[in-house]
Amino acid sequence: MTGRVWGLGVGPGDPELITLKALRILRNAPVVAYPAPDDGSSFARGIVARWLSPVQIELAIRIPIEAARFPAQTVYDQAALDIASHLDAGRDVAVLCQGDPFFYGSFMYLFGRLSERFRCEIVPCVSSLGACAAAAGFPLAARNDVLSIVPATLIDDDLTQRLSACDAAAIIKLGRNFARVRNLLERLGLAAHAHYIEHATLPTARVQKLSEVDPGLAPYFSMILLHRREKAWR
Amino acid sequence: MTGRVWGLGVGPGDPELITLKALRILRNAPVVAYPAPDDGSSFARGIVARWLSPVQIELAIRIPIEAARFPAQTVYDQAALDIASHLDAGRDVAVLCQGDPFFYGSFMYLFGRLSERFRCEIVPCVSSLGACAAAAGFPLAARNDVLSIVPATLIDDDLTQRLSACDAAAIIKLGRNFARVRNLLERLGLAAHAHYIEHATLPTARVQKLSEVDPGLAPYFSMILLHRREKAWR
Repeated sequence: MTGRVWGLGVGPGDPELITLKALRILRNAPVVAYPAPDDGSSFARGIVARWLSPVQIELAIRIPIEAARFPAQTVYDQAALDIASHLDAGRDVAVLCQGDPFFYGSFMYLFGRLSERFRCEIVPCVSSLGACAAAAGFPLAARNDVLSIVPATLIDDDLTQRLSACDAAAIIKLGRNFARVRNLLERLGLAAHAHYIEHATLPTARVQKLSEVDPGLAPYFSMILLHRREKAWR
Repeated sequence: MTGRVWGLGVGPGDPELITLKALRILRNAPVVAYPAPDDGSSFARGIVARWLSPVQIELAIRIPIEAARFPAQTVYDQAALDIASHLDAGRDVAVLCQGDPFFYGSFMYLFGRLSERFRCEIVPCVSSLGACAAAAGFPLAARNDVLSIVPATLIDDDLTQRLSACDAAAIIKLGRNFARVRNLLERLGLAAHAHYIEHATLPTARVQKLSEVDPGLAPYFSMILLHRREKAWR
């Protein structure tokens, strides 16, 4: 009997936003794997640290900083081999995912390598999208709205085309792209009612107007939310 | 001291997908409100029924079936008054929301009526989007993908335009629109790799290819997921 691999969504950051299901599976997992930077602690592990037990085997998937943006496939090749060795030995492996595993999550690179050979189950969780909307008090979309999730890493022409067509948008992966995106939203007349959110659900959470943001400080995990009607419920 | 109103996301259906935070707030709320059909029981209440206590005041917001699709503003006017009377009396009110309160949720109509006068907080939860992706084993989007949430209630021209432009899409609010949307996806060459999901996370959950779906049976709360690359991680 081979083990089962879980893509275990542990939420956007606040430990209290974990689901009962994720907590049950976490506690029962003999092996707990998680992404971690080359040098430093894992954000996903930090969310659930209070519930880990010393008898659990931990497996840090060390992802070089640059690879977090341009996934280095060799990292995932090796991680998939490491996880497979536990699965082959009959041990279930819970892979911790910050944010929803299938919403721009790096877990899908492991899923692509493991799901044909092993039983693989996903536990969905609170995504950054819902967390940011809640933090900003900003309803995302209603009725016949089209809501587009748009990575800030797109080139200007693509961003302009996507944002011109949508009723509502969440612009993700800001980081170094913040200033460029803000300029573009100003040109499109979409900046005035947009909200900027970082670290949603954490004690360091911040919600600002675009004009208040210091573009040098926007982290990669921040988001801009906007709606053409300003308030979705109108 | 007036009470506080909570937009309390209780997840897509599986009671185990509630968050620890939502459960804590639910148990502490003196008043629990929830949408319910004219005649019958509330889906959102059903998710959390096991944790309700007889000392809690319950407030069913009766929404006529037609109004669920075209919100009857008078229903929300009256519900906001009923909730406000508890808040004015100093009682917190938890409004149960099936799925994320700000992701096409009807809670925003109450939020629009109450949030200027009262302290209003949102507890995000697992959305139908994450639940359906997990059920189908279908990663939604990765890297530079634009993911569009598209209501099936749009007219054909709008649907065609939106779906032609996206890398990945979730088509929501299917119901009576299923056959029309399927035909359109076939014409656009997007049907072959699309997934149909209904009742995600419930015992009655079903994942099908579009060609297998009986269009007369698709419920309003079902979803089609598709990705241009077929597999997002490639």
